[in-house]
Amino acid sequence: MKNIKLTIEYDGTNYFGWQVQPEVSSVQGEIKKAIKILTNEDIDLTGAGRTDRKVHARGQVANFMTNSSIPAEKFSYAINKYLPQDISIVKSEEVDINFHSRYDAIGKEYRYLIYNTHIRSSLLRNYTYHVPYNLDFKKMDIAKDFFLGTHDFSAFMSTGSSIENTVRTIYAVSLCQKNNIICFEVQGNGFLYNMVRIMVGTLIDVGSGKIRPESIPIILESKDRKKAGHTAKPQGLYLEKVYY
Amino acid sequence: MKNIKLTIEYDGTNYFGWQVQPEVSSVQGEIKKAIKILTNEDIDLTGAGRTDRKVHARGQVANFMTNSSIPAEKFSYAINKYLPQDISIVKSEEVDINFHSRYDAIGKEYRYLIYNTHIRSSLLRNYTYHVPYNLDFKKMDIAKDFFLGTHDFSAFMSTGSSIENTVRTIYAVSLCQKNNIICFEVQGNGFLYNMVRIMVGTLIDVGSGKIRPESIPIILESKDRKKAGHTAKPQGLYLEKVYY
Repeated sequence: MKNIKLTIEYDGTNYFGWQVQPEVSSVQGEIKKAIKILTNEDIDLTGAGRTDRKVHARGQVANFMTNSSIPAEKFSYAINKYLPQDISIVKSEEVDINFHSRYDAIGKEYRYLIYNTHIRSSLLRNYTYHVPYNLDFKKMDIAKDFFLGTHDFSAFMSTGSSIENTVRTIYAVSLCQKNNIICFEVQGNGFLYNMVRIMVGTLIDVGSGKIRPESIPIILESKDRKKAGHTAKPQGLYLEKVYY
Repeated sequence: MKNIKLTIEYDGTNYFGWQVQPEVSSVQGEIKKAIKILTNEDIDLTGAGRTDRKVHARGQVANFMTNSSIPAEKFSYAINKYLPQDISIVKSEEVDINFHSRYDAIGKEYRYLIYNTHIRSSLLRNYTYHVPYNLDFKKMDIAKDFFLGTHDFSAFMSTGSSIENTVRTIYAVSLCQKNNIICFEVQGNGFLYNMVRIMVGTLIDVGSGKIRPESIPIILESKDRKKAGHTAKPQGLYLEKVYY
């Protein structure tokens, strides 16, 4: 029995997210199907975390146990043969039998792309969030730093989540601008449901003047979802990396 | 009667190219339909040039005559409302009544993106040409400069084209490399059928060692399509700009 760790890239446009759900297509489901064809095993595929419908990944991680004799590093090529073109295994490796891609994760990195110009982009429609009004980049850049450190992020979590501990630590944030694209990057020890998208929506609301940069600490303290900004659309979000 | 010039961006993935053809969807056809809904006119939409199936554009140009009272610069927003999300008019402007987007073009710029790594990319599958073997960038960079200047490009034209004058002038070429992407950019006074894709395919064959950089002048002189490299796939090609 071997424990195989996969690093996965996917275009989330045509999936109902990572997680297997009845009657709709999911990234996890497609990979399980491909491994079934390859090894004839019904494996459990444990992902580092869920991603929502239309959200992308460049470095999702998952692991599974197998009795197959395929060398660990060849699994990526072998599984890719049976996967749709919008999912690719970029790396496969054997890991310790106790490795668990969700429990062992010590941090994650996300990227978010905003397309900020009056006219929508046909080429970037599924890969960025189109914001057609002017954004004040400097204000957004000031605001982002208030996310750094350890906070209760309840105000930045979609309601309906039943999680108990809502304290998370953000290690690094960055914001850059190139042509019409604003790129937000964030690293933290964990993220609540929709947390990155609400952080980005709040930064956009800072950029448009609805929220002042200095209000971010007050919003955090309030623990009130209604005080934070809107939830940015899923198609601008990328799970970049999972840290172990 | 006004003459309206449109600058158009499109994701060519789901179209059989620019040009209207019976029973398949085309970019030209979609824009004509949108204008018909908007102005109730059956306009002639003249494009600067055709693009093939799956080829993209960031700066295609087309023009049409209209009696509509919509202000010229508002046409972009108005047409976009009736277009599919994978086509967008990025600019509309009134031009001289004699302006003709094809005859008046004095040059074009194309970009081509190669994704050069062992494993295919799910996110870039429709927007780059995946070359899984190692390419020698330095050799390709030397080879590209032989395209500069005025040459008979018959060897770089797909057979079946009935064009008489096959002499074209290339003003500028560049090649850059960032992460796993190799980007080729070329400006010229005109391009033969599949010329950019055969130039790129030839550069790739130089990178893989099949063709020597110094052979490019000999291939040009031969005027023989069979001497040049393969035709690179359409999904890596972008019509960037049309010059007037």
